[in-house]
Amino acid sequence: MHSNAEPDAIASIQWTGDKARIIDQTRLPDETVYLDIETAEQMHEAIQQLRIRGAPAIGIAAAYGFYLGIRSIEVDNFKAFRQKAESIANYMASARPTAVNIQWALNRLTQGIDDRKDLSIDQIKRWILEEAQTIHENDKQTCKTIGEIGNSIVPNEAQILTHCNTGSLATSLYGTALSVIYHAHENNKKPHVWVGETRPLLQGARLTTWELMRAGVHCTLITDSAAGSVIKNGQVDLVIVGTDRVAANGDVANKIGTYPLAVLAQRHQVPFYVAAPLSSIDLDKSNGEQIPIEERNGTELTEIGSKKLAPEGTRTYTPAFDITPHELVNGFITEAEIIENDFQYNLKRVKQEKENLEHAE
Amino acid sequence: MHSNAEPDAIASIQWTGDKARIIDQTRLPDETVYLDIETAEQMHEAIQQLRIRGAPAIGIAAAYGFYLGIRSIEVDNFKAFRQKAESIANYMASARPTAVNIQWALNRLTQGIDDRKDLSIDQIKRWILEEAQTIHENDKQTCKTIGEIGNSIVPNEAQILTHCNTGSLATSLYGTALSVIYHAHENNKKPHVWVGETRPLLQGARLTTWELMRAGVHCTLITDSAAGSVIKNGQVDLVIVGTDRVAANGDVANKIGTYPLAVLAQRHQVPFYVAAPLSSIDLDKSNGEQIPIEERNGTELTEIGSKKLAPEGTRTYTPAFDITPHELVNGFITEAEIIENDFQYNLKRVKQEKENLEHAE
Repeated sequence: MHSNAEPDAIASIQWTGDKARIIDQTRLPDETVYLDIETAEQMHEAIQQLRIRGAPAIGIAAAYGFYLGIRSIEVDNFKAFRQKAESIANYMASARPTAVNIQWALNRLTQGIDDRKDLSIDQIKRWILEEAQTIHENDKQTCKTIGEIGNSIVPNEAQILTHCNTGSLATSLYGTALSVIYHAHENNKKPHVWVGETRPLLQGARLTTWELMRAGVHCTLITDSAAGSVIKNGQVDLVIVGTDRVAANGDVANKIGTYPLAVLAQRHQVPFYVAAPLSSIDLDKSNGEQIPIEERNGTELTEIGSKKLAPEGTRTYTPAFDITPHELVNGFITEAEIIENDFQYNLKRVKQEKENLEHAE
Repeated sequence: MHSNAEPDAIASIQWTGDKARIIDQTRLPDETVYLDIETAEQMHEAIQQLRIRGAPAIGIAAAYGFYLGIRSIEVDNFKAFRQKAESIANYMASARPTAVNIQWALNRLTQGIDDRKDLSIDQIKRWILEEAQTIHENDKQTCKTIGEIGNSIVPNEAQILTHCNTGSLATSLYGTALSVIYHAHENNKKPHVWVGETRPLLQGARLTTWELMRAGVHCTLITDSAAGSVIKNGQVDLVIVGTDRVAANGDVANKIGTYPLAVLAQRHQVPFYVAAPLSSIDLDKSNGEQIPIEERNGTELTEIGSKKLAPEGTRTYTPAFDITPHELVNGFITEAEIIENDFQYNLKRVKQEKENLEHAE
């Protein structure tokens, strides 16, 4: 499916003719297990259990999941189809609440259905699959462009701190924040990456180190709480993270632990950038307080495999994300441009320019 | 050994006539395993492997370990004895470099030897055991007093954030930061404690939750990186941590992750207090940069039990402590008083008043 020019990355998700195939990321790096996903329910479970994860990747997954759901709708009138499609979209959207990419992909598909009410149900179904594949393909280009554009802010031999996993596994290919790092690496800038392990689910320790080492990028794993020391000791030139949703004012929802990194970066005058595909910008949320924060099951904190990490009965609080206020962000690396000031104005402008371009196509 | 007035705490270390007995804290809370320690080598291993841990507790442990080493010295002249004692003290001190309490306890014992050169070797040996027991007993009183004094800064229904384990397990009894919380609890202030899990070795998740739940104190476990959210959301009234060493200017070495908490606390105007027995104040270090920071084995980060958390070959950086600069500290809770200003002057004053008092006794 990939051209030869594409890197030797493992695709987080593929469409294989009549079903989706994903890598079960909960089992990486120990085992590389592929799962065939044939129903909306299977995709919902895979997203909810983080078998596939990363805001862009779950947007793509939700689009395929939606198709897997609607393809078996057996009605012959548009209105009934549209109703059932709506309920499948709501179901897919319920898999995870924070990343707006799911909602963005589903809106694009359901609005597309409305625009095609004169087609046959079969034609609409075919269009939905094609559109899911377009979302998937576009994400590859988006991630590549984010890397190319973002490369401009990376100095030679940059020491870069990142959090969670924002690489190929979190997207269709390349990633968002990691795409910037991959492109700096390909441009011989010899970056070194501090990888926060990202408790509780250890996406940094399990996935980011694995991706970076496969790509030959130097990296060092630290506990999330050691970021304070490496930043304070002058060992970080740049922090780059991804995002699950950016509010209209530039407030950023991202993996729990991002906010402390932004606070530390500001204290030590280290630039803090967010790699944000335009699909992650939600102009309907005026600020970060309006973004729903998913709370995960406490066992993700108190157990690793069969090993118990805390006494029976320990009460937990396990938000999956936090909000970084816009004033701590130096810039957003989007596929259109790097936005470094007047976020309120520029996020909207760039997002709308992209939409106008798509409508014109 | 304890009076009936003492709480139902598990003693981290006991002297049982001719040997020390410790709880193996690496196996808590799953198993309560006691280890009999009969040689300096066994104590060195127990300290290095964190079977016993916490700055005050390892000060006590090193004192007993020193006695276990010197008791088998078979020489009959003071000079030869003093030389061998010195080498045993250096050996015990090498177990862990950051907590000054080990060095403090050993200095007290070796200086005591010098003051007793007119006694017989057997008398000196007996004095060393008695003095180790005195250090042990004094720590109980110190911890109790820290709790009583510190209680004054705890409001009713306080939401307190703490890090690592600073309870009975980390000391002889009560603890340092946790002693403050225990005393607030006993005074019916109904504190609620946010417990940072404290990666990589999870002293918060394994030990602090266990101690607090045994004592009936409400607590909630979070990842270290979720502290940003709970502080930002106004859910923390007070941060209290312990310390492994306080420099003369008030810079604080404490468990990795303490510095980010202090930065976050300052940003959100949450008071940040350090519970610090006077034995943890090192006037010989003018600032935090002079405090040696122990780096632990990377496997503590990449493995939990037999479970691998990161790919084979992952490079790690695992400092066990970080330095919190004095300007982020609102106060030091010592057994003499709470020091809230002019740390440079007052830390020295309080420490010297205590020493003068001891010399006068």
